[in-house]
Amino acid sequence: MLRPYLAFKACEAVGGVGDKVIPAAASLEILHTFTLIHDDIIDRDLVRRGVPSVHARWGEPTAIIAGDFLFAKVFQAASKGLRLRGVPEQTIVRVVETLAEATVRICEGQMLDMEFEERTTVSEEEYLAMVERKTAYFFKASAEVGSLIGGASLEVVSLLGEYGRLAGIGFQMVDDVLGLTADESKLGKPVGSDLRDGKKTMPIIYAFSKANPQQSEAILKASRSESRETLNEALNLIVKLGGIEYAKAKAEAYVKEALAKLQPLPETQAKKDLQTLAKILVGREF
Amino acid sequence: MLRPYLAFKACEAVGGVGDKVIPAAASLEILHTFTLIHDDIIDRDLVRRGVPSVHARWGEPTAIIAGDFLFAKVFQAASKGLRLRGVPEQTIVRVVETLAEATVRICEGQMLDMEFEERTTVSEEEYLAMVERKTAYFFKASAEVGSLIGGASLEVVSLLGEYGRLAGIGFQMVDDVLGLTADESKLGKPVGSDLRDGKKTMPIIYAFSKANPQQSEAILKASRSESRETLNEALNLIVKLGGIEYAKAKAEAYVKEALAKLQPLPETQAKKDLQTLAKILVGREF
Repeated sequence: MLRPYLAFKACEAVGGVGDKVIPAAASLEILHTFTLIHDDIIDRDLVRRGVPSVHARWGEPTAIIAGDFLFAKVFQAASKGLRLRGVPEQTIVRVVETLAEATVRICEGQMLDMEFEERTTVSEEEYLAMVERKTAYFFKASAEVGSLIGGASLEVVSLLGEYGRLAGIGFQMVDDVLGLTADESKLGKPVGSDLRDGKKTMPIIYAFSKANPQQSEAILKASRSESRETLNEALNLIVKLGGIEYAKAKAEAYVKEALAKLQPLPETQAKKDLQTLAKILVGREF
Repeated sequence: MLRPYLAFKACEAVGGVGDKVIPAAASLEILHTFTLIHDDIIDRDLVRRGVPSVHARWGEPTAIIAGDFLFAKVFQAASKGLRLRGVPEQTIVRVVETLAEATVRICEGQMLDMEFEERTTVSEEEYLAMVERKTAYFFKASAEVGSLIGGASLEVVSLLGEYGRLAGIGFQMVDDVLGLTADESKLGKPVGSDLRDGKKTMPIIYAFSKANPQQSEAILKASRSESRETLNEALNLIVKLGGIEYAKAKAEAYVKEALAKLQPLPETQAKKDLQTLAKILVGREF
């Protein structure tokens, strides 16, 4: 419920009434759920949140349609839902545009993510372009949608959007770290699956940049391997080469930048909540 | 381009300027394309429009994302696209609602279609509930979107929607017939794949309702069978039992009903074009 929370707080932080955001908040969470269902098919992940993923439980055709169905519901909630709450049509159109744009970016990010799996080297710059699309624009959209409905000026909407984007990059980097180091029971999915799938996450990219040829080879070996030993060896190497520490430090730097964007906003409880949220995003353990 | 054409003509038939429909028309065709890409994955169809389907050419993950990407573009065109053409926001919100609702229905129809594959008997009533969702609501939405942008009253929008829905049912029944009888080079996909997949189309449902147990068995045998001979035997049986003739007659009856809905509209070239379109939908050979 991170994205709905972000939308509510962004609405309140600009003086809006949180209630009006409800259909848009639902829309954001449904959009997130839809992407997870299709991502799990694409990444062949059989477990999500500690239970079988949709395609694992109901088969791929049903999972594809379930995702599409939810995607349609995203725009139903954002159009009819907001209209019935009395949100002005001018605002609704901007909200729909924001959601559609975010989804275009998510798809682009997902394609880049897949493309990177096939490559041995990915630069940090390329990684950032992917993460912005896959994750950060969605946080940006959540903050924008909330502040739009709250009646903010486009200037303030854009400030909150930047907060969301920067916090989103930090969030993804922490996600990358947790994908390699978390307690599996807390994470709700197999640790190390990123490595197995050849994903180029921040710690992995950094480790590659510092690795000698033998070390690179050992990390690459873990991709497409089902051996727990090979995986653990690669994980240890990534830690040793400083990949985890680097990604954590980077994530904190992005969150600091995100917090700075909130500075011009009046001091409210909602602003405090947004500050806390950003800190939680990088401090979490799952 | 049937759905865009329908939207243009519905707009003109209510006195609107066709130009304003362009982003919505793009939206409808993109929505159609998105459903085809995902349908081809679900139905394991390797050929579409005479060329490899997206998943056959680029792999399933890319096809899933390509579909999602197009789906996002649907709502981008319908929101930002229409706004930049000067369509009032009140209208845009209705258009978005209509498109989202149609997609919800398409997904429901696709699920029913799949469920029916696993069943031996499906009633004509159940078939109609499926076809309305899978196909007819999309034609309905196309006519509604066009007339909404044309500035029609909700009463007239609903008349044109009914025209679209009824013509859409007729269209699907003809599609069912062509799936069994068409010239494969014109159809652009393998003839008889519906039968192979166990789909319950109008001719097949009718044939089952008239078949004795041996004949039913022979038709069922064709599903999941790759033998050309078994398939041809089943096709001949469906013809013999009157399935093709029945579906054609039903399609014509629906189109007649569709034409009656146009009756209250003023006599314009656009109205004539809509009449012609409905007749073409049932008279086509591919």
